[in-house]
Amino acid sequence: MTDVDVNLLGVGTALPGPPITNADLTARFGLPGAWQDWIDEFVGTKSRHFSVDLATGERLYTLVDLGELAGRRALEAAATDPAQVDLVVMSTSTPDQLMPATVNMVADRLGIDGVPTYQLQAGCTGAVQTLDLAARLLSTGRYRTALVLGGDSSAKHFDISASLLTMPPEVQVNGMLFGDGVGAAVLSAHPAHGAAVLRHVVTRLEGLGRAPGQVVEWFGWGDRASELPPVSEDFKAVERAVPTMTCEAFEELLAVLGWARTDIDFVLPPQLSGKMTARILEQLAVPYAQDVSCVTDIGNTGNALAFFQLQELLKLLAPGDRAVGVSIEASKWVKAGYAIEIPAL
Amino acid sequence: MTDVDVNLLGVGTALPGPPITNADLTARFGLPGAWQDWIDEFVGTKSRHFSVDLATGERLYTLVDLGELAGRRALEAAATDPAQVDLVVMSTSTPDQLMPATVNMVADRLGIDGVPTYQLQAGCTGAVQTLDLAARLLSTGRYRTALVLGGDSSAKHFDISASLLTMPPEVQVNGMLFGDGVGAAVLSAHPAHGAAVLRHVVTRLEGLGRAPGQVVEWFGWGDRASELPPVSEDFKAVERAVPTMTCEAFEELLAVLGWARTDIDFVLPPQLSGKMTARILEQLAVPYAQDVSCVTDIGNTGNALAFFQLQELLKLLAPGDRAVGVSIEASKWVKAGYAIEIPAL
Repeated sequence: MTDVDVNLLGVGTALPGPPITNADLTARFGLPGAWQDWIDEFVGTKSRHFSVDLATGERLYTLVDLGELAGRRALEAAATDPAQVDLVVMSTSTPDQLMPATVNMVADRLGIDGVPTYQLQAGCTGAVQTLDLAARLLSTGRYRTALVLGGDSSAKHFDISASLLTMPPEVQVNGMLFGDGVGAAVLSAHPAHGAAVLRHVVTRLEGLGRAPGQVVEWFGWGDRASELPPVSEDFKAVERAVPTMTCEAFEELLAVLGWARTDIDFVLPPQLSGKMTARILEQLAVPYAQDVSCVTDIGNTGNALAFFQLQELLKLLAPGDRAVGVSIEASKWVKAGYAIEIPAL
Repeated sequence: MTDVDVNLLGVGTALPGPPITNADLTARFGLPGAWQDWIDEFVGTKSRHFSVDLATGERLYTLVDLGELAGRRALEAAATDPAQVDLVVMSTSTPDQLMPATVNMVADRLGIDGVPTYQLQAGCTGAVQTLDLAARLLSTGRYRTALVLGGDSSAKHFDISASLLTMPPEVQVNGMLFGDGVGAAVLSAHPAHGAAVLRHVVTRLEGLGRAPGQVVEWFGWGDRASELPPVSEDFKAVERAVPTMTCEAFEELLAVLGWARTDIDFVLPPQLSGKMTARILEQLAVPYAQDVSCVTDIGNTGNALAFFQLQELLKLLAPGDRAVGVSIEASKWVKAGYAIEIPAL
């Protein structure tokens, strides 16, 4: 068939704390009521989860905490023992520390040791990068069972004491769009009857000469007084580029696999916001495919997002079904996608 | 032969600014003259390069600046056009920003686009992780030519205004040990007569239940007032663990390849400090092998270090020669190594 053909044995996810609604955000920051309507109408995200306490800013969950939970749940869903895992790949844009790599702290919590671990610094295409790397490494025959994880804890970047009203628009938008969470999946090179099969993965930088659409700053000891905004987003550039890049990635996956548009039963589109997802689906024009979206309830969870979609997909996917997922990273413009099916019985 | 067999076509490196000697450090921080002797005697590192101005703390070079230079030099050394590169893997523990990933900004500077790029968050084993990933991905047949890079810009973590004398020992040690730099290499799956061949690579987490030996903190917008030390090192734990882990990795590589100790012409040992390297070499006990070390002149350049060693190695390696390199990461304890030879004519 294609160059990767690995089984997706199980998916697990973890969200911190209770859902934070738009009403919660509006109340917390003393915003006019019209704001809540504006988020509902123009962003389309209803709630999200934060790893910090919204009232105090206290960090309640680390990425390792959430990674451990998601990893454990994925291993359980896949009926896989940590001792069987011989490869771990994790992606995030917001690690707990620069060193040790978060992946190694998560492995420690899960009791995984003596195996190669890789942590990818990535944004919205990070989850697909973990699938890509793990699938290709499994295909070399050197590894049998991979645990992949992706997650973000963006809320720790936000200044909870600042007024949203005085922020520049490219910073303001983040508090509404992003949510925290971690997702994980177990991939296996073993034949597994009835399992979902990852048929193809693609990830590709397409940023030559283009300004970054998203920037996440970190601060060392010496430049902590910097006034650079911690997270900024060129939302207009994102709105312009993402639907087109999504369609391109989708078409490429179909072409590689020889799948027709009408063969696709499920679409897992990029999830920057509910409204953006709706626009993307319109442009994709796959009327017979059901979309698998989760952004409305949990926001854009960055590196975790595709795992939340995959978790939903596995509940729906039946033998003979085909699914295509696409992620686009605005940072320096990365295009990524994957194709999954359960072979017909 | 083994599971990877790719050609190392060329290596390039880049260092920022002039060498900073121990006398420069002593003078800058108003330390007693005995300090200089102490560094000479017990650390054994004579000089290093910093990406910040030692007098003002101003950041003179970004990691992207150094990555571009090292990447360009590696491509030139390999007589490879950027357009031939179909895979880029970079590792660092100290990215310029969390997003975009530094690898994508370096690719942009080099005119590389439309290919998969991966950025690994790693410490002293990062360079070997890039070799590992690139070699295995090349071995799948999907890619032909990989540019790998590793580098660090640790100096931006240091508080240039603080007194070294008042720092706790686990922080103090960093200003002497670490230096900034980036290295790069071009790997190819094409047969290349007379080229150095990467025969085997291994990287493995071995940190279960062990406290991190090195921590690098970063600060988000909300926790910039944190008093956590930016970089801290459990130097005693490192001294205890690294020589043994080095010997284990060395023995494993020999066993996998069926090479005898007397077959080894060159050893590229871990480079935490000049003194530590000497102790490791003593323990390795390969009297017929020449060691390839660079720590005395440039300090521990973290993710760049193996590339500086490889650059020296390529000048020395002749047909029939065999070399083994080892890197140990103290963060959460990662063991890594690689074996290289030029086939006999």
